[in-house]
Amino acid sequence: MAELIQPRVLKGFRDILPQAEIVRTNLMEKITGVYRSFGFVPIDTPVLEYSEILLRKSNGETEKQVFRFLDNGKRDVALRFDLTVPFARFTAEHESELYFPFKRYHIAKVWRGEKPQAGRYREFVQCDIDTVGSDSAASDFEILNIMRTALAEIGVKDVTIHVNHRGIFNRFLAKLGIAEKSEDILRSVDKLAKVGQEEVKKELVEYTGSEEKASEILKYIAGAGDFESTLKMITEMSGGANEDSDRMAEIYEMMKAAGIQATYVLDPSITRGLDYYTGVVYETFLNELPSIGSVCSGGRYDNLAGLYTKTKLPGVGASIGLDRLIAGLEQLGKLESRGSYLDAEIFCMDKNLVVYYQKVAAQLREKGVKVEVFPEAKSMKAQYAVTDAKKIKWGILIGSNEAEKQAVTLKNLETREQFAEISVEEAAAKILA
Amino acid sequence: MAELIQPRVLKGFRDILPQAEIVRTNLMEKITGVYRSFGFVPIDTPVLEYSEILLRKSNGETEKQVFRFLDNGKRDVALRFDLTVPFARFTAEHESELYFPFKRYHIAKVWRGEKPQAGRYREFVQCDIDTVGSDSAASDFEILNIMRTALAEIGVKDVTIHVNHRGIFNRFLAKLGIAEKSEDILRSVDKLAKVGQEEVKKELVEYTGSEEKASEILKYIAGAGDFESTLKMITEMSGGANEDSDRMAEIYEMMKAAGIQATYVLDPSITRGLDYYTGVVYETFLNELPSIGSVCSGGRYDNLAGLYTKTKLPGVGASIGLDRLIAGLEQLGKLESRGSYLDAEIFCMDKNLVVYYQKVAAQLREKGVKVEVFPEAKSMKAQYAVTDAKKIKWGILIGSNEAEKQAVTLKNLETREQFAEISVEEAAAKILA
Repeated sequence: MAELIQPRVLKGFRDILPQAEIVRTNLMEKITGVYRSFGFVPIDTPVLEYSEILLRKSNGETEKQVFRFLDNGKRDVALRFDLTVPFARFTAEHESELYFPFKRYHIAKVWRGEKPQAGRYREFVQCDIDTVGSDSAASDFEILNIMRTALAEIGVKDVTIHVNHRGIFNRFLAKLGIAEKSEDILRSVDKLAKVGQEEVKKELVEYTGSEEKASEILKYIAGAGDFESTLKMITEMSGGANEDSDRMAEIYEMMKAAGIQATYVLDPSITRGLDYYTGVVYETFLNELPSIGSVCSGGRYDNLAGLYTKTKLPGVGASIGLDRLIAGLEQLGKLESRGSYLDAEIFCMDKNLVVYYQKVAAQLREKGVKVEVFPEAKSMKAQYAVTDAKKIKWGILIGSNEAEKQAVTLKNLETREQFAEISVEEAAAKILA
Repeated sequence: MAELIQPRVLKGFRDILPQAEIVRTNLMEKITGVYRSFGFVPIDTPVLEYSEILLRKSNGETEKQVFRFLDNGKRDVALRFDLTVPFARFTAEHESELYFPFKRYHIAKVWRGEKPQAGRYREFVQCDIDTVGSDSAASDFEILNIMRTALAEIGVKDVTIHVNHRGIFNRFLAKLGIAEKSEDILRSVDKLAKVGQEEVKKELVEYTGSEEKASEILKYIAGAGDFESTLKMITEMSGGANEDSDRMAEIYEMMKAAGIQATYVLDPSITRGLDYYTGVVYETFLNELPSIGSVCSGGRYDNLAGLYTKTKLPGVGASIGLDRLIAGLEQLGKLESRGSYLDAEIFCMDKNLVVYYQKVAAQLREKGVKVEVFPEAKSMKAQYAVTDAKKIKWGILIGSNEAEKQAVTLKNLETREQFAEISVEEAAAKILA
C-alpha cells in the first residue's frame, strides 16, 4: 500500500466545518435577500482572468499578493483579488447588453497572498453591490440605506456608518492652496485612528510646510458634532455651498425622510485612502467592537471602466467583508448557530423495519417535515450523537409495536417529552406547530 | 491617456449576465433546499490545494487538464477539478471533529482545462452530496430519492434514473471466469449508448476471446424489462442471490415503500467506467432530451479517503451537473426567467420629489414590498426600459398632485391598469395581494 499523504490545506487557507458554514451561509443568504429587495441583480464572472486585465491599474502591493501563473496555453493569468476590477471589465464588455442604471450584486471568493494573521486569510468572501450609470443622491443614499438594512437583517443593529464626501475635502485643500499634496494628506488623515492626532499632525506639518494649515486640516477632520453642524462647518471651510455639499445635504434629507438618520455620522476624517473615490465615502464600525475595524465600506467613483471603454460610467458601491464581520460577531457572541436544517430524525431501532422507516419518511415529507432516517441499526448512543451534533429537535421512534399499529412515538429531544403511539399525521402536526 | 485594454475573458470561460444568473441561482437554491431537507449540511474547502493532494490518485487525463502552478512560496498548487478529492482530504483531516454517518453537500465551482466545445466550459459548477460512514441500503436509497426530489423541485419531472450494482456485475464476470478483464469490459460496456451494440460486441469478443462470453455479457447488460425481472435475471446470471443482489432488492423495496419506483429502471449497462465505484451506480437522463447525456450521476464507493487515512470510510454520493442541466432545460424551453426580485418601481417623475420618493419607499418596505426608486428624472422611456428589463410588475407614479395628497398612483405595468391617487397602504396591499 502506498504511503499515506498528510491531509492539509495551504498556508493561509482553511476548511469550513458544517457548524460554521451553516452560519456563513445564513449570513450570505440574508445579505443576498436585502440586496435583491432593493433591486440589485446577480452576475457571475470567472475566478481566473488575464493578468493584464486584473493588474493594469494595480499598485505594486497588489502585484505582489496576487496568485498569478502561466496556464497550459502559456497565457498569463491570475486569480481575481477583488470583485470590482472584474465588474469593470464585465461592464465594458457587455455594455450594449445591459441597461443603466445597472445595479448588480456579487457575493464570491477572492484571493490575496497576504501574510496570514489572525482572522486574515488568503481566500475570503466579498459581498459587493454597485450601481453604475447614475450620479445622483438617490444612488448614493440607496447604498447607505442597504448597508444599514443588510447589517440589521443579520442582527447587527448597533452600528455607526461614518460618511464623508471626498469632493468637499478636495475643495477645502484647494482653498488652502495644497491641492497638489492631497494624496499624501489623504494617506496621513486615513491613519488618524491608528497612529493618533500627534503623529498625523507631524506629518501634515511636513507635507503642508505650515503649522497653521496642519491645524486647519485637523480642525476640519474633527468635525463639529452632529451631521448638520459638521456639514455646515466643512461647507464653510471649503469655500461655501457647492454641488458636493449640496449632494451631502440631499443625502441627509433622504436619511431623515426614511427615518434612519441616527445610524449615520458625518465624519470628515474618513477618506478611504484610494485615489479611486471621488464622491461620498463610508466605513462602518460595530459600536460594541470598533477595534476590529470597518466591516463594510465603499464610496462613489466617477469612472468605473475607463481602462476598457471610452464610455464614462460613474458609480457607487459598497462591500461587506464577510469574514471580518463573522470574526466580530463571534467575539460578541452574536452568531446564531444550528447543526442542520432538519426538523426530525427517524431512529433506526429495528433492522427489520428499515423499509417501513422510508415509508414513514415519505409520509412526513409529504406534509412538509424535513426528516432524515438513520440508516443503520446502530446503538441508540451512536444515533443520539448524530441528533445532538445536528441539533435536531424531534425524534421519531418506531419499534415493532408502533409499526404494527401504523403509529409512531414522537419525542422532543430537547425536553424529552414523549407522545406515544400517535399517527404520522399527528406527529407531523406537532413537529410543524 | 493609456491605450484601452480589450475587455475579454479567457478561452473556455464566460461571464453570466443577470437574466441567466438569476435562473442559475434559482436552480442552485432549490437544489440546496432539497439537500438540506434530507439532512445534508454544507462545508467549504479552498479552491486551491497542494497538487500532491489533488493529483495522487488521478490518471494522466486529469493531470493534463488541471490548472497547476507554483505559488509565490514555490508551493506546487492546483485548482480543484472536482469536489470529491477535496472532500476526501477534508474528511481525513477532520475525522475526529465529525460525526458519522456524515452527510455533506457542496455546491461550488471546479476547473478543468478541457477543449472548449458547445456547452462545455473550463469553469463549471458541481452540486455534490455524499454520505460517508454508512454502507446500507438506506443510504443508497436516500441518494437516489434526493436525485429524483431535487430534479422534481426544479421542474424536471420527466426523468429516468438508471440504476445498477457494480458488485453484481463483478460476480457475473467472475462466474464467466473473466474477472481480470473487468476494467476493459467496463470501459467497453460504458460506450454502448455511444458506439452501438455491434462495436461493443467486437470489443468484448476481443477481450474475452469468446463469442459466447461476449453474447452472455450483451444479454446481461440488456436486462429483462422491468426492475424485478431484470434483478432476477442478473442475480441468476451472477450465480444466485448474494449480498449485492439482496442490497439491490432492499433498495427496490424502499422505492416502493416511498411510492417512487416508477422513476427508476434497473439498467445493467450502467457501469460509470471509473474503478472507484463498488456498489450501486446511477445515471439520470431527461426523457425528452436523452441526447445531452446524464445530468446527475454517482454511486457507492468502499473507501473515500484511503490516500489520507487508515480509517476505511465507505460512502455513496451523487453530483448534479448544473451547467449541462441548464443547457438541457434551455433547449426544452423549461427555464423560468425573471429580470429581478422586485415587486415595484417608484418612477422619478419630478426631480423636486426625490427626497419624498425615499419616504414612500421606506413606507412600502416597512410593509414588505420589494421596491426600488429610479434615481434620476430621466425620460419615462429610459425609466420604462429599466422596468422592462427587470420585469417589474408594478409602477408607482408620484407627481406633485399625488405628493400633495400624500398619495400614489399605482400602475400594473403588465396590464396597464391604473389605481389613481390611492394611499401607500392601499398600494402595498394591492402589490402584495
